[in-house]
Amino acid sequence: MLRDEFDFIKKIRPKYSYQSSLIQGIGDDAAIYCNEPMFDELICMDTMVEGVHFTRQTMTPWMIGFKALAVNISDIAAMGGIPTYYLVSIAIPEEWTEEELTQIYAGMSDLGSKYSMDLIGGDTVSSKKGLIITVTVLGKVEKGTSLLRSNAKPGDLVFVVGDLGASAAGLDLLLSTGLNHPYTEYEKHLLKAHQEPIPQVEAGRILACSGLNISLNDISDGLASETNELAEASSVDLHIEFEKVPRNIYLNAYPIEKQKQWCLFGGEDYQLVGTMSEAGFKQLSPILSEKNIKLTVIGEVTEGSGNVYLYENKHKEKLLKKGFNHFDKGE
Amino acid sequence: MLRDEFDFIKKIRPKYSYQSSLIQGIGDDAAIYCNEPMFDELICMDTMVEGVHFTRQTMTPWMIGFKALAVNISDIAAMGGIPTYYLVSIAIPEEWTEEELTQIYAGMSDLGSKYSMDLIGGDTVSSKKGLIITVTVLGKVEKGTSLLRSNAKPGDLVFVVGDLGASAAGLDLLLSTGLNHPYTEYEKHLLKAHQEPIPQVEAGRILACSGLNISLNDISDGLASETNELAEASSVDLHIEFEKVPRNIYLNAYPIEKQKQWCLFGGEDYQLVGTMSEAGFKQLSPILSEKNIKLTVIGEVTEGSGNVYLYENKHKEKLLKKGFNHFDKGE
Repeated sequence: MLRDEFDFIKKIRPKYSYQSSLIQGIGDDAAIYCNEPMFDELICMDTMVEGVHFTRQTMTPWMIGFKALAVNISDIAAMGGIPTYYLVSIAIPEEWTEEELTQIYAGMSDLGSKYSMDLIGGDTVSSKKGLIITVTVLGKVEKGTSLLRSNAKPGDLVFVVGDLGASAAGLDLLLSTGLNHPYTEYEKHLLKAHQEPIPQVEAGRILACSGLNISLNDISDGLASETNELAEASSVDLHIEFEKVPRNIYLNAYPIEKQKQWCLFGGEDYQLVGTMSEAGFKQLSPILSEKNIKLTVIGEVTEGSGNVYLYENKHKEKLLKKGFNHFDKGE
Repeated sequence: MLRDEFDFIKKIRPKYSYQSSLIQGIGDDAAIYCNEPMFDELICMDTMVEGVHFTRQTMTPWMIGFKALAVNISDIAAMGGIPTYYLVSIAIPEEWTEEELTQIYAGMSDLGSKYSMDLIGGDTVSSKKGLIITVTVLGKVEKGTSLLRSNAKPGDLVFVVGDLGASAAGLDLLLSTGLNHPYTEYEKHLLKAHQEPIPQVEAGRILACSGLNISLNDISDGLASETNELAEASSVDLHIEFEKVPRNIYLNAYPIEKQKQWCLFGGEDYQLVGTMSEAGFKQLSPILSEKNIKLTVIGEVTEGSGNVYLYENKHKEKLLKKGFNHFDKGE
């Protein structure tokens, strides 16, 4: 009745790294690391499932690894934190080759090294169907800092860091014509936004270190969903002008209705949305601009009861929270 | 092509708890918590896959949750640490009901509350086939403590905390006759060892706080595998007398060859194995005994090159590391 673990799973068991002097020891099962009294600790954990969050038709193994780590780093960025370490648990079906699994870890390692992050643990198991990858990311942020969702105040401006819609547009292309279609250079920018999102760590750090009262969310589930979360958590209303929402430049070739859908509901852009005072905006705008980080005011905060309103051509509508979209059940 | 997430997955999104005054804030995506300068941090992450590590024929949903957390706490126990927080990422196939998922979280919560552990984050996603549950556990241990595998020294004694074999025996019963068979009271003890293992946190704490030079491993993959890990990591040889290996009392009804198989290679007992000096043993033995924790010397350490030898009836054989056994591919 019993069988041994796949041999190849044992082989690809990741090599844990040990570059930080704060790491005291790493076993197969647990890691021990020094904390730093001036910092609070951050932790987050996200899972990507084959056939739900990605397929082999939309992502190469390297991209799967890259993105699995990126979406977690984005959670740390939304707290204004410095990502420090990561752990990876991967459940592997038989049909994935050792080379593909090596590529998954290479994708994580290539992104992680940008932030000097050590891989300090995890687990490697077999799966009955579909690859499932769960990443835990640790981070740190200066004590006293908090960019909580509940920080939005009436009178604040609503801002977006970066621009929106490219990831969903890229996914649309991938679902229509797959990974290996001869895409134009324009289209490749959209694909890359979906496959290799770059978390806004530097912007998060600048916002956190400003000492300003800022509410912040990363945009994983679409602007509509994330702004509703801010409004609810802060018990205020948010008023957003669609014309001000920063749309990715490569969306220009597409009908405005598509652009709107992608920007508001598409998700997976991993940019930031938040609120701060007008004085704060004036203070931070040149600092972010100097770092080539795009900061755009898209609306304002009023007293209210947790609603978001969208204004377009003088028409006002309630912007509803929409769930994250998953792949269809058929692959 | 796109579809919304299952509604019930959204519903069972776990309620994160907030009992510790060290928790500064919890979002859906990341938690922030205070560190303590006198402690080092511990972290570990383990995954259980339906059809690989459990089936519905061997475990109830409550037990699946309980055990998923227990195996991670056991990793913290093996570092001598205090478990503090946990995060849970769960990938759920359509056929699991909301009630079953609630039971999984209840199993974790019931065990976690024994250690005053807060659930501070995680992820909830859909799976194409099979339930996959990944748990990250944080812990802490006094700075300067280290119960590393590489600590074994020639002249040390090899010891086991607790007794062995019951989990594998219980699994054998479950695989033969399923969850709902009318088991005897004796058999129920074996089942429980497999379904609801209790990690040796208290013993780990006593070993850690002793200040002694101790190597330590939890027994997740069987005594043979874990002792080989200690021998390899410390570059010594371990000599184990099978007659001294503490066998669970409820194994007595079974043939000795079965008992041997279960104790040495069965795994999932989540007891502890390690090495310490004879003087250390004399010091700790009464302390553990007072707490009703069973501590047994099973052999000794000599200079060597990472091998483990088993002695039985004056016969000596090399004890080989064997992989953890998984369920057969058919459920």
